[in-house]
Amino acid sequence: MSAAFDEAIALQPQADGSYAGHTSPAYANMVGPFGGVTAAQALNAVLQHPQRLGEPVALTVNFCAALADGPFAVTARPARTNRSTQHWVIEMTQGGATVLTATAFTATRRDTWSAGEHALPAVPAPADVPLPTGRGRVEWINRYEMRFVDGGFPAEWNGTDHGISRTRLWLRDNPPRVLDFASLAALADVFFPRIWRRRATLVPIGTVSMTVYFHADAAQLAATGTGYLLGQAQAQAFRNGYFDQTAQLWNEAGELLATTHQVVYYKE
Amino acid sequence: MSAAFDEAIALQPQADGSYAGHTSPAYANMVGPFGGVTAAQALNAVLQHPQRLGEPVALTVNFCAALADGPFAVTARPARTNRSTQHWVIEMTQGGATVLTATAFTATRRDTWSAGEHALPAVPAPADVPLPTGRGRVEWINRYEMRFVDGGFPAEWNGTDHGISRTRLWLRDNPPRVLDFASLAALADVFFPRIWRRRATLVPIGTVSMTVYFHADAAQLAATGTGYLLGQAQAQAFRNGYFDQTAQLWNEAGELLATTHQVVYYKE
Repeated sequence: MSAAFDEAIALQPQADGSYAGHTSPAYANMVGPFGGVTAAQALNAVLQHPQRLGEPVALTVNFCAALADGPFAVTARPARTNRSTQHWVIEMTQGGATVLTATAFTATRRDTWSAGEHALPAVPAPADVPLPTGRGRVEWINRYEMRFVDGGFPAEWNGTDHGISRTRLWLRDNPPRVLDFASLAALADVFFPRIWRRRATLVPIGTVSMTVYFHADAAQLAATGTGYLLGQAQAQAFRNGYFDQTAQLWNEAGELLATTHQVVYYKE
Repeated sequence: MSAAFDEAIALQPQADGSYAGHTSPAYANMVGPFGGVTAAQALNAVLQHPQRLGEPVALTVNFCAALADGPFAVTARPARTNRSTQHWVIEMTQGGATVLTATAFTATRRDTWSAGEHALPAVPAPADVPLPTGRGRVEWINRYEMRFVDGGFPAEWNGTDHGISRTRLWLRDNPPRVLDFASLAALADVFFPRIWRRRATLVPIGTVSMTVYFHADAAQLAATGTGYLLGQAQAQAFRNGYFDQTAQLWNEAGELLATTHQVVYYKE
């Protein structure tokens, strides 16, 4: 267990059915906390909810404002419960103001015909990809082991349009922690901004909405254990202040565990 | 103007700030209405809201239950309003029960450096792609002109695993209607289920969550007018009852107007 991650996403049930949480200095970003951990905290309110049915299949989190370092409240409401599926509405507040909205879909799954279609790309094994040297510029970076296969940080921040924004990396929690839904939700947000990769320019950015589709169940995540995930992320369009990112996360066995998308503000 | 689409998404403001709408027989699906129009109705509650700031950038709709043919109520709440951005929480009910939850993000956009990255594939022009013959099996199909470039309906429903689920088609409203955010949201859901394409088997399906990222602004949509869009959709994984779809919508000028994703239940 990574004490840091588990402490970061810990929530205390309140008498009114809401949960109380606190931002974690271990996951501090430039302004406020790493969004992936905020997403994991929002999902955790569903995971811990006594009325939860099944496991997460879809999660959308909307970052409404940078969280202030400190406490927050989060509510998860089962808006609709069917026989084997459930729809959740989630909201996180600080001082009464909404800082995050989210929806989630949980379901009990049955074994069916299954197939991957987006295959793990041909990449070197994790052990053959060097670790970056030095510590991250922000604290949360140090909570992940990232081995960049290609599309790492530009060698020079010189404004060159590289024409492509794709990044591939092996990644896992640091220290290693057995994969679960909360940590996978956080890992979905681990990619540095596609516009930095594409343009080699450190413009200010902020994710406004992220969606994660979980293709794996809890058993498959547990079987992945502390192994590496291959993450691949690429933008499809940059337009007037917002770009998108489409990304995949496979385990070393080549199973596509999650696909994820986000739309990100950028300043010029 | 397509009277059918505009009538379908029409909402009447109520004294309590909610809106009243009605499902449209012109967009009837096998069970309940076409989900794309339901998504457009949900978005329309934001578009018509007197407190709206800016234009849609992101929309996530969660289909909680098949809508019954008849009236519905929809509420759109601005959960957070910043200087130039706004986060919305949307809920649709029938007889007091939640049938849809959604979130949306609107923003005023500024001209910035922009670039496409996922380019329009090399495909024949719309006029060189034949129209399907015959009417759709369900009524909503007749509200769209669909010219399949590749990956159309399987020639035989014989259960063959085709190994790929990709479809490309030129599409627009039928009769033609000038593109706007509501119709683009509906067009994002127009693709037939990827599992039918992949497996050539008509298994029961149902979209549970769809996200649309709007890369275009209102002016760009108006300039696209009644022209065709190229839609491309493909699944990345089919696993234990749920598959995902990632899709793009370009106009004939090659501008990527929207990227969209959904996760879909399938029965086996």
